[in-house]
Amino acid sequence: MPAEALPPGSVIGILGGGQLGRMLALAAARLGLRCHVYCPDPESPAFDVAAGRTVAGYDDARALGDFARSVDVVTYEFENVPVAAIELLSESVPVRPGARALALSQDRLSEKSFLSEIGVATAAFAPVDDRASLDRALGAIGVPAVLKTRRFGYDGKGQAAIRWADEAGQALEALRGAPAILEKFVSFAREISVIAVRGLDGTVAAYDPAENVHRDGILATSTVPARVGAETAAEARRVAERLMSALDYVGVIGVELFVGREDEALLVNEFAPRVHNSGHWTEDGCAVSQFESHIRAVAGWPLGPTTRLADVVMTNLIGGDADDWRKLAAESGARLHLYGKRETRLGRKMGHVNRLARKP
Amino acid sequence: MPAEALPPGSVIGILGGGQLGRMLALAAARLGLRCHVYCPDPESPAFDVAAGRTVAGYDDARALGDFARSVDVVTYEFENVPVAAIELLSESVPVRPGARALALSQDRLSEKSFLSEIGVATAAFAPVDDRASLDRALGAIGVPAVLKTRRFGYDGKGQAAIRWADEAGQALEALRGAPAILEKFVSFAREISVIAVRGLDGTVAAYDPAENVHRDGILATSTVPARVGAETAAEARRVAERLMSALDYVGVIGVELFVGREDEALLVNEFAPRVHNSGHWTEDGCAVSQFESHIRAVAGWPLGPTTRLADVVMTNLIGGDADDWRKLAAESGARLHLYGKRETRLGRKMGHVNRLARKP
Repeated sequence: MPAEALPPGSVIGILGGGQLGRMLALAAARLGLRCHVYCPDPESPAFDVAAGRTVAGYDDARALGDFARSVDVVTYEFENVPVAAIELLSESVPVRPGARALALSQDRLSEKSFLSEIGVATAAFAPVDDRASLDRALGAIGVPAVLKTRRFGYDGKGQAAIRWADEAGQALEALRGAPAILEKFVSFAREISVIAVRGLDGTVAAYDPAENVHRDGILATSTVPARVGAETAAEARRVAERLMSALDYVGVIGVELFVGREDEALLVNEFAPRVHNSGHWTEDGCAVSQFESHIRAVAGWPLGPTTRLADVVMTNLIGGDADDWRKLAAESGARLHLYGKRETRLGRKMGHVNRLARKP
Repeated sequence: MPAEALPPGSVIGILGGGQLGRMLALAAARLGLRCHVYCPDPESPAFDVAAGRTVAGYDDARALGDFARSVDVVTYEFENVPVAAIELLSESVPVRPGARALALSQDRLSEKSFLSEIGVATAAFAPVDDRASLDRALGAIGVPAVLKTRRFGYDGKGQAAIRWADEAGQALEALRGAPAILEKFVSFAREISVIAVRGLDGTVAAYDPAENVHRDGILATSTVPARVGAETAAEARRVAERLMSALDYVGVIGVELFVGREDEALLVNEFAPRVHNSGHWTEDGCAVSQFESHIRAVAGWPLGPTTRLADVVMTNLIGGDADDWRKLAAESGARLHLYGKRETRLGRKMGHVNRLARKP
C-alpha cells in the first residue's frame, strides 16, 4: 500500500449509508472522486448520491470481497461496523481509519483505558461484569456515577444513573447483564467537541471546538465559538491531536470533552472515529468542511484549511422538525441541509440547519 | 400544475448529464431532493451523483415518457436539447425553464430579434441565408462584422470574421450554407455576465456580474467583482430581470454582455437558459450557489440570498490543466472542483478552481 494520493476518478468505499455517508459522498464528488456505498439498508440516503451501491450485511464475506475489489480505499461512517468486516477488507484494500480506532470506540472500557494509557484525562471508571464488581467499582468511585454498557450505546441508550448506592441493583438490571463500565458522574460546566483530522503523511489539523447541547440524549445544537478560553480551546485541539498520533490515525475524528466548572479542566467523554454530528457547522462555516477533510485524508490528499469563517449555530432537525423546511429555506442567514430520508420517525435525524453570523 | 413547492424527497429530472447537471444534482441533494438524470452518454459525470439514471436519446419518445412519469419536475443543463423533447415532456410534467427560452437560445436570430423586441440592446444584426442576403446585410451593417450560424454554435465554433467586404464569400463558405446571422463587430472594453434567477412566484434575484476572459473561444476565467461601475452592474442585473420577466422564466439564466469602451454602454451578446460556467464562482463566493438557486426555483422553493461574500477568480481547468489537481488541492485560498470525467480531452472542461479573497 503506497502512501500515495489517489487520483481523481478513484473510488472511495464507504461502509454505512446514513447521512454521514451521504455528506461524505457529496464532498468526494466535488473533488472528482467516486463513491461506492455499502449498507444493509436498501433505503440508505447515501445511495442516492453514490456511483456504486451494495446492499448487503456486514457479515457477508462474499459481498465484502466484491466491494474490496471495486474500490481504492475504504472508510466508514459509523462505528458499529463489525471489526471483523474491517479486518477482512484490510487484507486487500487500505481501510482508513483502521480497525484499532474502530475497535476502541466500540468498547467504552477499552476506549477509556486507552485514553488513560496515553495520558488523556477521563472521568474515573471501572469495569463491571456483575454485582460483585459493581460494588467494588462503587467503593472505588463513589456516587453519583453512571453505569453504561461497554458496547452499542448511543444517543443516551444503554445507561443508568446511580445516585445512591442502593440504586446499584436496579441499574444493573436495566442493563440486562451486558458487560458494563461504571463512570464517575462528572458535574461539568459545558460539553464541547473537537473535530480534528490527520492526513496520510501525519499532518494534523483541527477545527475550533463546538459547544454542544443534548436533548433526550440526542445532540440538539452545536455552537461555535464555544464559551471557553483560548487556552482551553487549544488544549482540546492538542488532546485530539495526541489521540490521532497515538492511533496512527487517518481521517476525521470527533472528540467529546467535558469542561470542568473550575479552571475549565478537560475530561474526554468519548471519541468517534468518523465525521461527527457536532462538526456539521463546518459545512457552511469553513472553506473545507469536515466531510471534505475526511475525504482528503483517506484519499491521501493534502489537508485543507480548518479556519473558521463565521459564527455558527447548528441545530439538528429531529423527527417532525424537518416539516418546517419551507420556513427554514426562506430564513435569511440559515443554511438548510436535509438528508433525503424516506420516512420521518420520532427521534430520527432528518437534517440540520446552520445559522450563520459573519465574524466581525 | 399547481404553483406549489415540491417537498423534500421529490424527484427533479435533469436533461443532460455533464458537469452542470452534476453540480445541480449535488445542490439538490443538500436540500433532500432526489435527481433523475437523462443523457444519451452512458459515461455522463452527473450519473455518479444521481439517484435515477436514464441512458437514452433525446428523440426516444418512450424513454422520455418513462422519464416524465418518474419525476416531479424537469429541467435541463444544456441548451441543445431538442425543443420537441421539451414539448413532449411538458404534456405530462412541468418543465422549467420552459420550451420558449430554450427555443430562443437555440437560434441566434430568434434570440436577437426577441431581445430587440423587449427593448434590450444588442449589436446590429441581420439574417443571412445566401450571398444576396449577406451582401444586403453587409450593406446595412458594414464591416468589420461576424457571420455566425444561427444554430448549434458554442465555444467559438461556427463563426467567421468579415473584416473587409471581399471576405464575404470566404466566410459564407466556412459556414457551409447553414442559416446564419451577420452581427456587427463590437469593440468592447470587457465582457461581463450576469447570473440571475426567477422563482415560480415571479421573485427575481441576481448575483454580482462577473468579468469573463475567453481563450480559444472557451471561457478561461470569471472574476468578481467585474471592473464596471455600480450603475453598470445594476443595469446589467436589470437587463437579466427584464429578460426573465418577458419569458415568464423559472430558474437560473446566464446573460453575457459586452461593456462598451465609452460610457460602459451594455449590449447583450447572448443568454443561456441554464446555470452558466461564468457563475461557478458562486459556489464558494456566496451562501447559496447558482446551482442551489436553480434547484430552489424549479422546485418552487423560496429563493436564497445572492449576496457575494468574497472576491473570487474562477479559472476553468481545461484538458491537461486538471493534471495539476494535487498542487491545486494544496493551494491555500483555492477551492478545487473536479467533474469526474473519465477521459481528459483537448479543450474539454475537466474542472475549475475558485480562488478567494475575503471581502475587506
